[in-house]
Amino acid sequence: MTNKKLILVTNDDGIQADGIRALAESIEDLGDVFTIAPELEQSASSHSITLDKPLRINNHGRKRYGVSGTPTDCVLLAIHRILERKPDILISGINHGPNMGEDVIYSGTVAAALEGYLLGIPSIAISVASWDKVEFDDAAEAIRELPIHMLKLDSAKPHLWNVNIPDIPKPEIKGIRITKLGSRVYNDVIVEKKDPRGKAYFWIGGGKPGWSSGNDTDFAAVSKSYISVTPLRPDMTDYEGIQLLKEWITEWQPR
Amino acid sequence: MTNKKLILVTNDDGIQADGIRALAESIEDLGDVFTIAPELEQSASSHSITLDKPLRINNHGRKRYGVSGTPTDCVLLAIHRILERKPDILISGINHGPNMGEDVIYSGTVAAALEGYLLGIPSIAISVASWDKVEFDDAAEAIRELPIHMLKLDSAKPHLWNVNIPDIPKPEIKGIRITKLGSRVYNDVIVEKKDPRGKAYFWIGGGKPGWSSGNDTDFAAVSKSYISVTPLRPDMTDYEGIQLLKEWITEWQPR
Repeated sequence: MTNKKLILVTNDDGIQADGIRALAESIEDLGDVFTIAPELEQSASSHSITLDKPLRINNHGRKRYGVSGTPTDCVLLAIHRILERKPDILISGINHGPNMGEDVIYSGTVAAALEGYLLGIPSIAISVASWDKVEFDDAAEAIRELPIHMLKLDSAKPHLWNVNIPDIPKPEIKGIRITKLGSRVYNDVIVEKKDPRGKAYFWIGGGKPGWSSGNDTDFAAVSKSYISVTPLRPDMTDYEGIQLLKEWITEWQPR
Repeated sequence: MTNKKLILVTNDDGIQADGIRALAESIEDLGDVFTIAPELEQSASSHSITLDKPLRINNHGRKRYGVSGTPTDCVLLAIHRILERKPDILISGINHGPNMGEDVIYSGTVAAALEGYLLGIPSIAISVASWDKVEFDDAAEAIRELPIHMLKLDSAKPHLWNVNIPDIPKPEIKGIRITKLGSRVYNDVIVEKKDPRGKAYFWIGGGKPGWSSGNDTDFAAVSKSYISVTPLRPDMTDYEGIQLLKEWITEWQPR
């Protein structure tokens, strides 16, 4: 029995992505680091579990495995097949692009961390809040304190953190802010095209999302050059809404 | 200008599913009902938005449209392309199978309702809590009061309800309970097989999920023959966790 920490690194950009390589390298000294990630980019696959086709596991060298599925598939196969015991921490990322506000619900990066958390593993999702070319090594260095701190916490009560890093050189990062999820201002655009036969088809795309203001949000922190750390819990119950609904109805008998 | 309510019906089991037909028929008298749903079953596609391929819209007869994408794609195309104005209510379902506890995060049925809610539309996700053969007409009749009530509420503050119906004949349903999300006890099973070349592949599947106890949960309501109505909000922030983290750090300077 060793005291070495078992660390699972995954992502949704795929095992070949720069972000996951930078992450795994930067925390190599913290424990036994296994990288188990999708073979291919899985963006917007969100929480999918692959139920309709079988999955393959491919070895990509020492402690590196590619899975022919989604981030959630990777976590399930890592925990139930590949790793010898439950990891002490799961880190998902570093995603290329922000995962803030309601977008965390759609995020495969967060999905992988959430799956780990639901399986009882302290978990962190990490994203760089930029779609431009990113210096992942700077970003990975900047967040090293987070897994170090999480590994010190009581693992019987796992936490789930969602981290967004501003895309600026590490010396310019002002620090960490603990935040709540902000709120997206929707800006979806549907683009209509015609195929060679004149039949319409549609792309979802376009408009960059805006954000509602609020000083204590993830978006505000990142825009002010702070790393944003938002603690999450997988409960979307609207507890205020329960009271309102109970005023309407306690025991309704369908007619 | 008519006072007729505009009602959007969608699902993730696909436009040909019994559940969506029963739902649309049962509320036909409540307004102008448009059924806009995936061409094919989308289970476990969750909140995916299709960004990497174009989408087609096919007319399936009067006020019925199939979309070659996910439930979220359907809602976006319905709102931004197909419907003449924002609907007064969105109803997603009736799903064949429960959507309770943390599973709502994975659910395409809930994803569609959540997308509607994020776009400012009062929205309801409806599921029958059974994987067996289901009497959808009974289920659809049993929940008619819910959209009727939601349409009376202030639409400027939309609500999002997640509804699970026990799979029993309508006269045996005892009423409605307002609930919080329960908590799943994980029971995933990985099944390993060998292909004809002796190489391993894996299925995710197996074990039916268990549930933690708790009288006020969705699971408890359904198991006691009540319709469960859980109000949701798209905020997974762990507000208690914010306090804990702030005690650790307020302004951390990365070294």
